[in-house]
Amino acid sequence: MGVEERRQQLIGVALELFSRRSPDEVSIDEIASAAGISRPLVYHYFPGKLSLYEAALRRASDDLAARFEEPHQGPLGARLLRVMRRYFDFVDEHGPGFSALMRGGPAVGSSTTNALVDSVRQAAFVQILSHLDVTDPPARLELIVRSWISLAESTALIWLDGRRIPRAELEVQLVHDFAALVAVSAAYDEEMGALLRRIAESEPADGPFADLVGRLVSLAG
Amino acid sequence: MGVEERRQQLIGVALELFSRRSPDEVSIDEIASAAGISRPLVYHYFPGKLSLYEAALRRASDDLAARFEEPHQGPLGARLLRVMRRYFDFVDEHGPGFSALMRGGPAVGSSTTNALVDSVRQAAFVQILSHLDVTDPPARLELIVRSWISLAESTALIWLDGRRIPRAELEVQLVHDFAALVAVSAAYDEEMGALLRRIAESEPADGPFADLVGRLVSLAG
Repeated sequence: MGVEERRQQLIGVALELFSRRSPDEVSIDEIASAAGISRPLVYHYFPGKLSLYEAALRRASDDLAARFEEPHQGPLGARLLRVMRRYFDFVDEHGPGFSALMRGGPAVGSSTTNALVDSVRQAAFVQILSHLDVTDPPARLELIVRSWISLAESTALIWLDGRRIPRAELEVQLVHDFAALVAVSAAYDEEMGALLRRIAESEPADGPFADLVGRLVSLAG
Repeated sequence: MGVEERRQQLIGVALELFSRRSPDEVSIDEIASAAGISRPLVYHYFPGKLSLYEAALRRASDDLAARFEEPHQGPLGARLLRVMRRYFDFVDEHGPGFSALMRGGPAVGSSTTNALVDSVRQAAFVQILSHLDVTDPPARLELIVRSWISLAESTALIWLDGRRIPRAELEVQLVHDFAALVAVSAAYDEEMGALLRRIAESEPADGPFADLVGRLVSLAG
């Protein structure tokens, strides 16, 4: 294998191991053994476990950011639901590593890993704004989109901790939560009100947002 | 001064400095100078900056957890709003240190600091459940309370970054967000529906929840 090919293979093997168990618990020996090479050879390609972890995290970050990309077609609720499904696919595939990273800890939390996590959040933020056809978001919209992204993260982390609620339910719930957070802001801010009306107009009568409103009205009645 | 008295004074001085600037930027020299003692004397009481940082963070954590305590009297919305005001007071007083801690970074993110952050989240969780008169929360309620706590954190962090939205607005918004997240879950789950009805029944017609519902109804009309 060439140098770059071997590096890529090692990153793949490491990502697999870092995804399945907390990175703290994965040793270089284990990675070497899974890759079928010697421990010194691993160090030939990566100076230490942290650099290999960061390379694996970079690949995972690129993968996750790519899953946020969604064609600009059809109702917003349905688009967001498809993204949520791919998000939970990712979380499912990388559970223990995702938890360890997002909960912080000694082996994680370097400035590089923090920057990678932030880059994924930023990719999600940019994608959502593009679907809302907004280029220069007002402060209230930026707050809602960014804080909803953190709500999605915490929901995924809590789901991973025991998986006591079906993930399909949480995927829909997060789509609804987005609409609910926009609605709360819209109740007190005209600009957000206009955005909410624009979203609502593009929604079909049998879409997730209409379904939620119908259920809430019947709950209130 | 006695040993314990001197330690407590140093913790107070350090907390003040760690609150006003990112802990990475605060040196032991500065803490010594602010406390009016020599650098070696600081090391006599604390082995290093991390242990002093952890002691300061412990004091701040106890302070914040205490602000979650609220008498079990009156409507839930008003209680939660008073807690949100005290939460934003805390965030306001400790802005840069709060941001640095919650965003992670090299000087923060030890297992001790993570445990302290988690203990504050747990204190908030326990307080909210006690106000809901729930001792053994179903999975969906636990998810909502815990993920709402993270929503409050991210909202506070985004507020700190430029303070572009009045904090009083965000305090009310978070109370509404809580009701909205419960309502979304209640739309699909009977147990949550019963909880939502119980909350709604205790709310006055001029309270924050009724105000929100009124505005949403007029927005939809």
